[in-house]
Amino acid sequence: MKLSLLNSNLKGDFDLIEQELEIAIHSKTKMLNDATVQLLKAGGKRIRPVFVLLSAKFGTYDIHTVKNVAVALELIHMASLVHDDVIDDAKLRRGITTINYQWNDKIAMYAGDYILARSLEYMTKIKQPIAHQILSNAIIEVCIGEVEQIKDKYRFDQTLRDYLRRIKRKTALLIAVSCELGAVAAEVDVQMQRQLYKFGYFIGMSYQITDDILDFTGSEKDLGKPAGEDLRQGNITLPALYAMKNPKLKTLISTINEDTSKKQMDSIIAQIKSSGAIEQSHAISSRYLKKALSILDEFPANRARKTLREIANFIGKRKY
Amino acid sequence: MKLSLLNSNLKGDFDLIEQELEIAIHSKTKMLNDATVQLLKAGGKRIRPVFVLLSAKFGTYDIHTVKNVAVALELIHMASLVHDDVIDDAKLRRGITTINYQWNDKIAMYAGDYILARSLEYMTKIKQPIAHQILSNAIIEVCIGEVEQIKDKYRFDQTLRDYLRRIKRKTALLIAVSCELGAVAAEVDVQMQRQLYKFGYFIGMSYQITDDILDFTGSEKDLGKPAGEDLRQGNITLPALYAMKNPKLKTLISTINEDTSKKQMDSIIAQIKSSGAIEQSHAISSRYLKKALSILDEFPANRARKTLREIANFIGKRKY
Repeated sequence: MKLSLLNSNLKGDFDLIEQELEIAIHSKTKMLNDATVQLLKAGGKRIRPVFVLLSAKFGTYDIHTVKNVAVALELIHMASLVHDDVIDDAKLRRGITTINYQWNDKIAMYAGDYILARSLEYMTKIKQPIAHQILSNAIIEVCIGEVEQIKDKYRFDQTLRDYLRRIKRKTALLIAVSCELGAVAAEVDVQMQRQLYKFGYFIGMSYQITDDILDFTGSEKDLGKPAGEDLRQGNITLPALYAMKNPKLKTLISTINEDTSKKQMDSIIAQIKSSGAIEQSHAISSRYLKKALSILDEFPANRARKTLREIANFIGKRKY
Repeated sequence: MKLSLLNSNLKGDFDLIEQELEIAIHSKTKMLNDATVQLLKAGGKRIRPVFVLLSAKFGTYDIHTVKNVAVALELIHMASLVHDDVIDDAKLRRGITTINYQWNDKIAMYAGDYILARSLEYMTKIKQPIAHQILSNAIIEVCIGEVEQIKDKYRFDQTLRDYLRRIKRKTALLIAVSCELGAVAAEVDVQMQRQLYKFGYFIGMSYQITDDILDFTGSEKDLGKPAGEDLRQGNITLPALYAMKNPKLKTLISTINEDTSKKQMDSIIAQIKSSGAIEQSHAISSRYLKKALSILDEFPANRARKTLREIANFIGKRKY
């Protein structure tokens, strides 16, 4: 998400959040600090803070209040990335070596725990009890999703529903909650909180499906890892599920395991790409996006709505 | 901690907490549920709930309020055990196979995350904002402690101060916070909250030192793991630190690594035991216990104080 996309009047607030993230992950324990700083420096789109701030714009916007929600949510996301990289034995994230690869799985486990703990500290600054319930439920669902993801690895007979439930927990839920908690912190009325949650959910689903498409269509340079890496790791995403509707491709894809060579993967990816699966996946992503946009139509016509629409349209077309 | 030690009027409340722990760790995801149920069934002394309930007795005791604090704290403790077992490559805990050993490190990582998330859910039921701040700070310190523990492994030149700081974060802090939060939930006055925190801190220090002594003096049957296992794993505890004041023993102990044989370990343990280090460690443990008991003297003379004194004395003498 390029910041140029956003209203320039939010630039200062985003800089503030970036500074706060630096403060949040600091530790006097050098090894821990080195690990978390490296993660922060690898950057990221910071889409959760973006949604928190924009959602708060529909209520009584006070950056010093919503900042805490934005930082807490980005930290939860970062903590989950660190633990995900352990599960996936990932070497690179955004072109930077992962904590598990540069140090080891154990340091990564505790670095993730530490970042999560820091996020809780920021949440304690939010006074509404409902915010805490929403957040703890979200963390529980994210954890369940992560275990389900391990279980579903290389399970080639899984359904579209399994996939959708998985990406809800993996991505959509935390984006939905970002919108909802931004609204809660700004004391937006309950009906609108609910609508912002739904908007975030639809955007999140579309966003993750696009991400999963890019794993097939993106360049190694843009992805920061080889194309098709998700599938080789056993993460079966929407394009693979559509491709497997073709029995021949299903047989071929079902042979994939950790030892599948790059050459074999390249051939499988090419066949998935020419099967129509990418276009079908795009259609589903677009359907979610449309639902998100139609919710926006009901919102008051302010600058935040305009920016949310720009972001939604960007997500539909993004190439990285 | 045998429940017979406790006033029989608390028995019903402890049963309630045990039931609530079962509800808390339940998951529809079978693998996750199997893992957490196994952990719960392995039991434990539940000393954190004991301290929460007894501390609450100094204020407006309502089991339906303090229950949430007790469950949250026991779950945080359980989550940290699961992640600790990953770090230590532990095969057994209380004679039952660990999650990392029966499944794998990754499942254990997420099982720990899941249990921690559940604990947050219970905490959301506590209305006092200060309770949330106390708890998130405690989790942060526990995480830092765990990273420091990795860093300090096999570091034979560490000081007594390094050790004391480590066990504060590892054990004493969560027991101190159990006392403090029990008091907060029962709206005990602030001065008394502070005293209960200090009581818990001293008890926790004494408790962990006794635990570290038992690693040398306990039987394999009582410990659920071979004696001296901590030291072989590179965790340098108080008896080892005292033994190393003798230069010959220091040279010998400094040779320990993961490949040290059982026979070599048995010989080293025997030499530590005859060096006077166990007695010196007991003296330190007793000093902390005495401080805890002297705080109790200032408390109102009720049944809870009597039970806390019994527990303190039990901790000083325990053999398992």
